[in-house]
Amino acid sequence: MISGPSGVGKGTIKEALLQKLQDIKLSISATTRSMREGEMEGRDYFYLSHEEFTTKLENDEFLEYAPVYSNMYGTPKKYVMDNIQRGYDVLLEIDIQGALKVKEKMPEGVFIFIQPPSIEALVQRINGRGKDSPESIQTRLAACQEEMAMVIHYDYLVINDELDEAMNKVQSIIIAERCRVKNNY
Amino acid sequence: MISGPSGVGKGTIKEALLQKLQDIKLSISATTRSMREGEMEGRDYFYLSHEEFTTKLENDEFLEYAPVYSNMYGTPKKYVMDNIQRGYDVLLEIDIQGALKVKEKMPEGVFIFIQPPSIEALVQRINGRGKDSPESIQTRLAACQEEMAMVIHYDYLVINDELDEAMNKVQSIIIAERCRVKNNY
Repeated sequence: MISGPSGVGKGTIKEALLQKLQDIKLSISATTRSMREGEMEGRDYFYLSHEEFTTKLENDEFLEYAPVYSNMYGTPKKYVMDNIQRGYDVLLEIDIQGALKVKEKMPEGVFIFIQPPSIEALVQRINGRGKDSPESIQTRLAACQEEMAMVIHYDYLVINDELDEAMNKVQSIIIAERCRVKNNY
Repeated sequence: MISGPSGVGKGTIKEALLQKLQDIKLSISATTRSMREGEMEGRDYFYLSHEEFTTKLENDEFLEYAPVYSNMYGTPKKYVMDNIQRGYDVLLEIDIQGALKVKEKMPEGVFIFIQPPSIEALVQRINGRGKDSPESIQTRLAACQEEMAMVIHYDYLVINDELDEAMNKVQSIIIAERCRVKNNY
């Protein structure tokens, strides 16, 4: 799990990892939203009807799920488990709430928290267009600080100060975890 | 702790690590043997009289110790702890028996088992000069297999097949351990 507050650069680290490391599969989410042009079933998402999603939910088939506007998104457990069985590591790029839910179902997972060098810098970056009111920035700052405290539930902390360095740290964590005795016996 | 059977290449990996990684100090052993030409107190060893060694032993000042012929060798706890306090990682290159003793006193340490690609290859390498009898090779093979089973007490397993790769894995383990949330709070 590559996780952390939004805007911290999880996605960039994820992309770099997929390019650099072998034997890694990206987890694919399920969604009830319609397929868009250029998307493909099983590559971008697993596309489900609301009924299918609800059935899977009732059968405990998601590691985590969340509504976004009027659609549901979730991480199918089967896809993750199948790939682990086949000898792959499976990478999830996921927000903090989602990661904590995954941890409940899969405490043996490896949870990496990507942290911004400073919360102020992060909020400023999200507010790059300078259109937010001071009040909404203040609210976002408080929310971000609250999220930051969730790091204690994670295994690893990587500060995304310099992208290459952060990338190397995450890569080292994956290599190290592959060397764990408990993962080799 | 970089540990494993003798002849597996612990020393080479250790040297490479010290060159490549910063903020690492090598643990310095204490010994009752005399200082040899070119050696230096506190760099090669801490040189102790038998009486001094015994006193420290009684005061539980060693992480591990062992007799070699008529002399005693030990790992002073203070040197390790002082350097950790100062923000360094301390590297111990140590045999399997020693590592297991250190683990009793310092279970929070990071224990890396260096494994030969095959036990047969290792025993052959130790027997490089081809002077050992088949019986003594057989004995060594059995002892080595027994030692190998100790890997279950370690945190990490690194197979020293190709030196560069093994080195990178050990380096990744150290970088990853530095990112552990529990080591940052």
